[in-house]
Amino acid sequence: MQRTLVELIADKRDGGTLSAEEIQRLVRSFVDGSFADYQMAAFLMAVFFRGLEDAETVALTEAMLHSGSVLDLSAVAGTKVDKHSTGGVGDKVSICLAPLVAACGVPVPMVSGRGLGHTGGTLDKLEAIPGFRTDLSASDFARIVGEVGTCMIGQTKEIAPADKRIYALRDVTATVESIPLIVASILSKKLAEGIDGLVLDVKVGRGAFMKDEARARALADKLVRVGTRAGKKVVAVLTRMDAPLGEAVGNANETREALEVLHGKGPLDLVACTLVLGAEMLVLGGKATDAKDAEAKLRAAIADGSAARVMEKMIAAQGGDASVVGHPEKLALASEVTELRAARSGFVAGIDALTVGLAGVAMGAGRTRADQAVDPSVGIQLDAKLGAKVAAGDVLARVFTRTKKAGEEIAPRVLSAFTVEDAAPPSEPLVVGRVI
Amino acid sequence: MQRTLVELIADKRDGGTLSAEEIQRLVRSFVDGSFADYQMAAFLMAVFFRGLEDAETVALTEAMLHSGSVLDLSAVAGTKVDKHSTGGVGDKVSICLAPLVAACGVPVPMVSGRGLGHTGGTLDKLEAIPGFRTDLSASDFARIVGEVGTCMIGQTKEIAPADKRIYALRDVTATVESIPLIVASILSKKLAEGIDGLVLDVKVGRGAFMKDEARARALADKLVRVGTRAGKKVVAVLTRMDAPLGEAVGNANETREALEVLHGKGPLDLVACTLVLGAEMLVLGGKATDAKDAEAKLRAAIADGSAARVMEKMIAAQGGDASVVGHPEKLALASEVTELRAARSGFVAGIDALTVGLAGVAMGAGRTRADQAVDPSVGIQLDAKLGAKVAAGDVLARVFTRTKKAGEEIAPRVLSAFTVEDAAPPSEPLVVGRVI
Repeated sequence: MQRTLVELIADKRDGGTLSAEEIQRLVRSFVDGSFADYQMAAFLMAVFFRGLEDAETVALTEAMLHSGSVLDLSAVAGTKVDKHSTGGVGDKVSICLAPLVAACGVPVPMVSGRGLGHTGGTLDKLEAIPGFRTDLSASDFARIVGEVGTCMIGQTKEIAPADKRIYALRDVTATVESIPLIVASILSKKLAEGIDGLVLDVKVGRGAFMKDEARARALADKLVRVGTRAGKKVVAVLTRMDAPLGEAVGNANETREALEVLHGKGPLDLVACTLVLGAEMLVLGGKATDAKDAEAKLRAAIADGSAARVMEKMIAAQGGDASVVGHPEKLALASEVTELRAARSGFVAGIDALTVGLAGVAMGAGRTRADQAVDPSVGIQLDAKLGAKVAAGDVLARVFTRTKKAGEEIAPRVLSAFTVEDAAPPSEPLVVGRVI
Repeated sequence: MQRTLVELIADKRDGGTLSAEEIQRLVRSFVDGSFADYQMAAFLMAVFFRGLEDAETVALTEAMLHSGSVLDLSAVAGTKVDKHSTGGVGDKVSICLAPLVAACGVPVPMVSGRGLGHTGGTLDKLEAIPGFRTDLSASDFARIVGEVGTCMIGQTKEIAPADKRIYALRDVTATVESIPLIVASILSKKLAEGIDGLVLDVKVGRGAFMKDEARARALADKLVRVGTRAGKKVVAVLTRMDAPLGEAVGNANETREALEVLHGKGPLDLVACTLVLGAEMLVLGGKATDAKDAEAKLRAAIADGSAARVMEKMIAAQGGDASVVGHPEKLALASEVTELRAARSGFVAGIDALTVGLAGVAMGAGRTRADQAVDPSVGIQLDAKLGAKVAAGDVLARVFTRTKKAGEEIAPRVLSAFTVEDAAPPSEPLVVGRVI
């Protein structure tokens, strides 16, 4: 006899395992309203304590995926590969990565999110480009991926609506931090893009969602296992997120920085992160034999300008002003600049990404509620990076604000993120693990 | 800085302890709608896993209690004592106990519930008395307790409304079986009666909510600790509930049986349970020095007819036909009687209370949903009690139904509750523990 929905909650609560059919029934009933919000909330909390086995997580992923429609990219030739980051501060990698990988022949259909909490969002950063639209239809998305090689849009109403509702519920019921729920949420959205392969950038550290490496590794492992069981080629890379990635934190300034990478410039850590993830994507997409081969191809696509040209085409196809690629300075920054200076001499031993991220939110570059708007022009520029030798009075960072008062208010907060010590900090590798 | 409500859920989830003020805030916010149903559901599931410390449980009890009004019995002289049972099959003790204890000088204000699931409810049983009303106003309730010594009503809208809503939520979110939540629910309602003392009958066994003794004892311990911290005199008695209590399971027939006790008759186990609980109430109420003294006074109140007279007065005061006390047969039973006979000779080694209780529900004597009506006239009479020597073909039980067909349908189910074996079962004591 079919178990009741309350019996399913009780079984999970008591450490039992639900069948795929039962998980599908929970999600279907949640969507049609017969499994109430409060019942789903109790189930999610039970999952927080008891976890989900891989088969249950696959079932949850697929149930959420099929609560909406899967984008049809069958008309696009090639192995379609996307990248997903679990989120960090200053993480603008997607913006340079997608055109770069597409320029090497791997189609990159990318559905991105907005900033929430201390981490920024790719959509907010892209929308700093005048005219750029991220709310394209599914058919326009498929057409642009086919014609340009990549397209970057926001989650449509049709993509995994059950995930959207469940995520909103988790946010207000203290059930966000559950690895199987994170896995199902990420994969249901990514699988809806119609991809063949997925490279996951699992961030770990102070500015990441996962603060400790063991949990980040557990998340990466589960993402790869579940994604693979769901029929996709999946690789996860664990990267450090203690200090912000790159030098810019904001929206317009981050997009500027990402464009610099396409011109062979940009901060070394950002370039390194882009190349590592791009190499994985090229191998998954069958356009490189190994990481070394892939990196050479990526560097060539930067050097010969083909990556920048894909970016121009993508921006134009999405209604934006493509001239920003050649002229990143066209992306306007707020006019009030406040300089933050070192109180002492020494080496920059730490730049707390969480503090910088929260300062960015407070300045208006991010949001604390999903319905808030961001100001693309405000932001933080980190002039002294990790390990830099500084003298007392040197500029460590600059904040860009609309008013002088706003700059003065936020400056101490940003400055507090910096630690200056006598000795240079040990150099930490960007990549701390890889799961395949 | 005050923590947000979501932070309170997260803290409980992570094993933290909330302050009394924080628990009050959760309940207040739940009542005013700013802490949503789904957030309370997640909190309740977190409590299921993490528990509540005694101080937290006291705070939850008092917050739920003060979500409504406390009945004002200040005009009633004496130490007011009530009894609460965690619920069993055939448990009609309240009906004879309240007038009996009141006859000995201890006022008994009693707010009872209806049957739900396999257990019956005192209100349903009392309503088998023609004209008897359980929906009295708070002022009528106080007046009758003062004039008669006891009054038995249902939970009013004013009594612990937060408990009512939280209980409804627990019922559909698999969070019923949590000892601190059970304790807070029971005590918030009982404290709202304006009592000074409370005797708890914690049932344990097949037909009880708590199937195993360790958990029943943990519940009894917590009830006594929390009730005492909330300023009341509290005693708990653990009693067996493997087989139904007494011989009648239903509504009219159970009330008949309770009335028999007031006439010095009735099944021995029912009489014993009534005397044990009554003795505790008399001692708490200051009308007896110890259990022995109390039992003598209770027996005297039965022998001299004073208990029966209190019952008549209470029934009359609540609009019912008091002549049923002298003539219990006036409580009409359904006319179709189906006899269940022993298939073999031996001793009755078991009568599964859960099976009997569920059969009663199926016959219409109970309900599976709170909005169902019960049929007072249908029921089960257990003619062979635990330990009885029976010959093949002897009547083990009779079922009273409206139609012959209904009787034939339910008969095998009731019969399946009986186990007949060669040897007489060991005699189990009714009382298995006492917590003070």
